[in-house]
Amino acid sequence: MARTTGSDGEKTEAAVREAAVSLIARLGYEAMSMRQLAAEVGVQAAALYRYFPTKEDLLFTLMREHMEGLIEAWDAARPTVADPATRLAAYVENHIAFHIERRHSTHVSNMELRSLSHDRLTQVLRMRTAYEKELRAILRDGAEAGVFSVEDTGLTAMALIQMMTGVIVWFRPGERLSISEVTATYLSMTMRLVGAAHGATTTYGAVRAFERARTL
Amino acid sequence: MARTTGSDGEKTEAAVREAAVSLIARLGYEAMSMRQLAAEVGVQAAALYRYFPTKEDLLFTLMREHMEGLIEAWDAARPTVADPATRLAAYVENHIAFHIERRHSTHVSNMELRSLSHDRLTQVLRMRTAYEKELRAILRDGAEAGVFSVEDTGLTAMALIQMMTGVIVWFRPGERLSISEVTATYLSMTMRLVGAAHGATTTYGAVRAFERARTL
Repeated sequence: MARTTGSDGEKTEAAVREAAVSLIARLGYEAMSMRQLAAEVGVQAAALYRYFPTKEDLLFTLMREHMEGLIEAWDAARPTVADPATRLAAYVENHIAFHIERRHSTHVSNMELRSLSHDRLTQVLRMRTAYEKELRAILRDGAEAGVFSVEDTGLTAMALIQMMTGVIVWFRPGERLSISEVTATYLSMTMRLVGAAHGATTTYGAVRAFERARTL
Repeated sequence: MARTTGSDGEKTEAAVREAAVSLIARLGYEAMSMRQLAAEVGVQAAALYRYFPTKEDLLFTLMREHMEGLIEAWDAARPTVADPATRLAAYVENHIAFHIERRHSTHVSNMELRSLSHDRLTQVLRMRTAYEKELRAILRDGAEAGVFSVEDTGLTAMALIQMMTGVIVWFRPGERLSISEVTATYLSMTMRLVGAAHGATTTYGAVRAFERARTL
């Protein structure tokens, strides 16, 4: 979307996106009206259409930005080493951190796909596939190197992604467990699930400590 | 729901439920109207209200029956032995088989909770908790017996349930893998995830063969 509306326009657009994510998560996309959304943001309904000519343009923007954000976060978190266990651990950490931060946006992205037009659905699914392919590559490299024991990289990738994304369904900050405790447990479960050779996580820990020290 | 309407009434009610599940899965609960549903079933809208006085009564019935069905299926599948690995394997098999058979109903049950009234939401969540508690008990027994290695039974139960239910998102009968191949892979992943002692699945296989022979 061209940002020719200057700084106030950008602020309004951001407020629209934020309010839309939370309204859609609460009511569902089909049930939310542009009128309701305008009222929530405190603008006229006509003003919304300047940013999002149709309601579906808005939904598509939310979903595309969610996936772009996820892929960017992974590009930034991706370790520079080739060790599959280290890469897998980084993928798990990034995936959980990203989704816990964006609980509503994740709900919208997972639940409202049916309301996208065919072409836009294809675009969003293509981005998802690209992201999941990264995980499949890690699993395949680990299996080929003999450090993971995986029957089917496709199935294992889906199982891990659904297990990790599922965190947003029950996790609430400030309850029994912190994000880092949850992440640590999911990391152990993931490493066992892929049959990571004993010691793989120790190597991982050492490499992470090194990487962290390097970026300080 | 009292079934005083006789056999034709029961058939209509079943047709309404079936059409509702598929319409809600496709359009979403909020977007579906009782008028559309009546047209789909081929009855007058007024006739629907004989079975379901409100739209929310219908949604609640679908969700309650989904959970009752799941709990009944597990009661029937529950092994008579105490061995945690055998019980866990039976839980996984039953969970995957039940949800693959009821893909639309599972979507409705997972995605439309927000449209239930507080009391009914509480009832549905209570049934879910009872079902998940069965899994937590298996994990705890396994951990206490030293055959599973589990950091947190609550987290592990949620991770397993979300990983298994996620099958319905991507699995389509007649594609690359059969239900039994998918189930076998999920079983291996589950056993590794809970750190099942080597040989636990062999015991499981032997016990299952015994149980199957016994019920023939």
